[in-house]
Amino acid sequence: MPRPFHSIAFVASDAEPAQEAARRLSALYGNASLASAEVIVALGGDGFMLQTLHRFMDTAQPIYGMNKGTVGFLMNHYREEGLRERLAAAVENAIHPLVMVATDADGVEHRALAINEVSIFRQSYQAARLQISIDGKVRLEELVCDGVMVATPTGSTAYNLSAQGPILPIDAPLLALTPVSPFRPRRWRGALLRKHQEVTIAALEAGKRPVNAVADATEVKSVQTVTIRESIDDTCYLLFDPEHSWDERILTEQFRY
Amino acid sequence: MPRPFHSIAFVASDAEPAQEAARRLSALYGNASLASAEVIVALGGDGFMLQTLHRFMDTAQPIYGMNKGTVGFLMNHYREEGLRERLAAAVENAIHPLVMVATDADGVEHRALAINEVSIFRQSYQAARLQISIDGKVRLEELVCDGVMVATPTGSTAYNLSAQGPILPIDAPLLALTPVSPFRPRRWRGALLRKHQEVTIAALEAGKRPVNAVADATEVKSVQTVTIRESIDDTCYLLFDPEHSWDERILTEQFRY
Amino acid sequence: MPRPFHSIAFVASDAEPAQEAARRLSALYGNASLASAEVIVALGGDGFMLQTLHRFMDTAQPIYGMNKGTVGFLMNHYREEGLRERLAAAVENAIHPLVMVATDADGVEHRALAINEVSIFRQSYQAARLQISIDGKVRLEELVCDGVMVATPTGSTAYNLSAQGPILPIDAPLLALTPVSPFRPRRWRGALLRKHQEVTIAALEAGKRPVNAVADATEVKSVQTVTIRESIDDTCYLLFDPEHSWDERILTEQFRY
Amino acid sequence: MPRPFHSIAFVASDAEPAQEAARRLSALYGNASLASAEVIVALGGDGFMLQTLHRFMDTAQPIYGMNKGTVGFLMNHYREEGLRERLAAAVENAIHPLVMVATDADGVEHRALAINEVSIFRQSYQAARLQISIDGKVRLEELVCDGVMVATPTGSTAYNLSAQGPILPIDAPLLALTPVSPFRPRRWRGALLRKHQEVTIAALEAGKRPVNAVADATEVKSVQTVTIRESIDDTCYLLFDPEHSWDERILTEQFRY
Repeated sequence: MPRPFHSIAFVASDAEPAQEAARRLSALYGNASLASAEVIVALGGDGFMLQTLHRFMDTAQPIYGMNKGTVGFLMNHYREEGLRERLAAAVENAIHPLVMVATDADGVEHRALAINEVSIFRQSYQAARLQISIDGKVRLEELVCDGVMVATPTGSTAYNLSAQGPILPIDAPLLALTPVSPFRPRRWRGALLRKHQEVTIAALEAGKRPVNAVADATEVKSVQTVTIRESIDDTCYLLFDPEHSWDERILTEQFRY
Repeated sequence: MPRPFHSIAFVASDAEPAQEAARRLSALYGNASLASAEVIVALGGDGFMLQTLHRFMDTAQPIYGMNKGTVGFLMNHYREEGLRERLAAAVENAIHPLVMVATDADGVEHRALAINEVSIFRQSYQAARLQISIDGKVRLEELVCDGVMVATPTGSTAYNLSAQGPILPIDAPLLALTPVSPFRPRRWRGALLRKHQEVTIAALEAGKRPVNAVADATEVKSVQTVTIRESIDDTCYLLFDPEHSWDERILTEQFRY
Repeated sequence: MPRPFHSIAFVASDAEPAQEAARRLSALYGNASLASAEVIVALGGDGFMLQTLHRFMDTAQPIYGMNKGTVGFLMNHYREEGLRERLAAAVENAIHPLVMVATDADGVEHRALAINEVSIFRQSYQAARLQISIDGKVRLEELVCDGVMVATPTGSTAYNLSAQGPILPIDAPLLALTPVSPFRPRRWRGALLRKHQEVTIAALEAGKRPVNAVADATEVKSVQTVTIRESIDDTCYLLFDPEHSWDERILTEQFRY
Repeated sequence: MPRPFHSIAFVASDAEPAQEAARRLSALYGNASLASAEVIVALGGDGFMLQTLHRFMDTAQPIYGMNKGTVGFLMNHYREEGLRERLAAAVENAIHPLVMVATDADGVEHRALAINEVSIFRQSYQAARLQISIDGKVRLEELVCDGVMVATPTGSTAYNLSAQGPILPIDAPLLALTPVSPFRPRRWRGALLRKHQEVTIAALEAGKRPVNAVADATEVKSVQTVTIRESIDDTCYLLFDPEHSWDERILTEQFRY
């Protein structure tokens, strides 16, 4: 379903190659205001792309990334010519983020969205002791570990992969619950949940064993309880070149070794 | 959606406890002919259940298992009383098997269905050399290994789990492609595919390194090429007690350690 | 080689059951001064045992632990009667700790011993970027990860095990180098080194990606470089009941699942 | 300890490049009789090297391999010039093989040596049921699996590595006991044993679930019991270029990813 985008806005990471690319592309295609642009072109790496997706969440403006960073899993190849044609031909993926609601040691509630993952992690050298519930029912009484995360399909190739969680196709209706360095039960490998399931993590002995919660790059210190679920009310849109679609990337990534 | 089953047929594994159960249950509920029964009650373990599902494939007769074996992942708890009520209240899961088309060393084509998995495995002590294609495109030029399998969500808790593949929710639209003892690339962990994708495995050096293909318990010796895809034309139906549904089992299984 | 211990000193963790045990045992066997005791009996769990081993490092006083805690891998079973006979019959294991030399962001050098492991770990949500050298030669240019550790055979059943490192027999002349959540190279599983090899970990981008180093429970914040080697000049002595020797524990532990 | 070798015999795998290399090297250095040669130079890959080590076991003739095959972990780099100097400067590693004593279904005892590993493996699609004892004591009552192996340090980079066993330094006094596709206990990862320990594997239900035993390339069908221990009476000698010693290879291999 090709669609023409008349106005493009460029955003770029602080790195000089990304800034330089923004200048060159603005000269070629014009640079609309962020508020009025029909499409946002993000220049940088995956980290900057994540920031951009958060920034334009719920604006209905699709984001097209071009790689000017070290990792470019969410990015298309960088090329200056033919951008309007590529944008018109791009495939759109709608993404719902996770919403994290974290209650800290003072009882204050913090809310943040995550496109990749929400992770809970020990704050000091003391291992975390966590209790895990799914849809309000306790499923793991006590997990002694470095941490645990809930990752979306998008995030399945990020931190989740480091912790040996499975790579998920982008539209798999699943969330990966993946432990980091589980000490007890030491061989627990996590679970694949349905995307509509809600996960609650409670910190046990939170005084002696403080833990932090992180939704993408938003960190909440010393949490007591964290609830994580898909936010169907929030949406962002990613654009990919059809010959290099997310599907294709995921498949390629799964056959890398 | 409760529905009454008027006629029940009992089938049982060869083991004496299963045979004894069949006699007792037949005395209580009658034992309809296999052709006319509205529901089949299978008595045994998971192995017998698999046989029964194959046997009643495409008959439209749902299968309700009661555990009289060593492993009972596909089975309900054994109880003699209240069977009609349990059957009426049971949740039905429709399952499409995989269809394997294997071409052997003489060029003969063999076709078989698999509810759990299709695996390709070295026949001698010589490691297999396999080439893997997805939808006709080569994705792994050479996998040196003991073997590789394509597992359904149903089969994800069986052989796939031994080979460290992920456990999948029953209705996840995915297939697990999981290697067994990969030697080269030695750290390849497999892939989660979409269920409509077709997998082709070609045996390289099939003379020096013969491999067999197995669809559940149907073995084809010395295969050259094996194609595996979901068979949407074939269906079998499994019945589970609602308080002990497959969903619940999968979740419980994923939190076992 | 049974040997009589004439004077025993009891030390106990803060937990009331351990304190109570210390009172009862002191009443039965006397409680020598720590300086003069021929043997130290430690009452608590593995965490307390580690503290005790550090405290009596290089005093030549052997430590005999009795389990009054949650984990008791380093401990003998608790029993009040027959202690002198058990001590006389106990098997002694001499242990050399690791010595960590960590240079922090201000260039200050910190030195600490570790009986279990020395670990380097990200301080914030930013993944660590580490360079690993063995005996002065760079072996891994860049490891992007949560962290990495060097574990002794004694520590191989502790944090190393959580991170999926191998369990080592107590007298294996090896050290386990084990990554935690390696992101790049994402499938690197670590290495078994010879015990006389020296490991150096350098933090890359230490400003943006601060890391801490921990030797058992001694934490050094914001390190730049950490050097780890076996300290043959330091020794502590552990006593085990012969029918429940460390060897036997390690073997039993390896067959647990 | 450089030592001159006056007479060299060349052996080569069937592959033409190896045969050609043998002709060229014989022309340059002469080709002594196998019986009289002071050193054997093997030309081929790791598979041929293993055969050669078996063939010259206990002859006291050291083997120097040069790589003319696909995998060359046991081989030195191929070069035609300077061979006498390389042989004189080479580092020698003495290796004791494993001895396997396997009793088959007819009660016949088979004895074979293994330099890499002894493995027990299911013969049909039926999973194996194995009982594992160490030094005569049952340590695992029942392992349901594809198979299990005992690997030497030399073999630790071969089949053991595919099955996710640890890489061992060449002189580590250890054996790796590593399962292949463990189904029950499904998360058992194997054990590192001391090299003087004896492992006994008994096949349970050997009629229904036949298993084979393999010592390197020697296969014994339908075994009942297999005993595996280091054979200190048998020795072979491997020669390596000092700048490319086994130690160095193992270390390099452990940092590959």
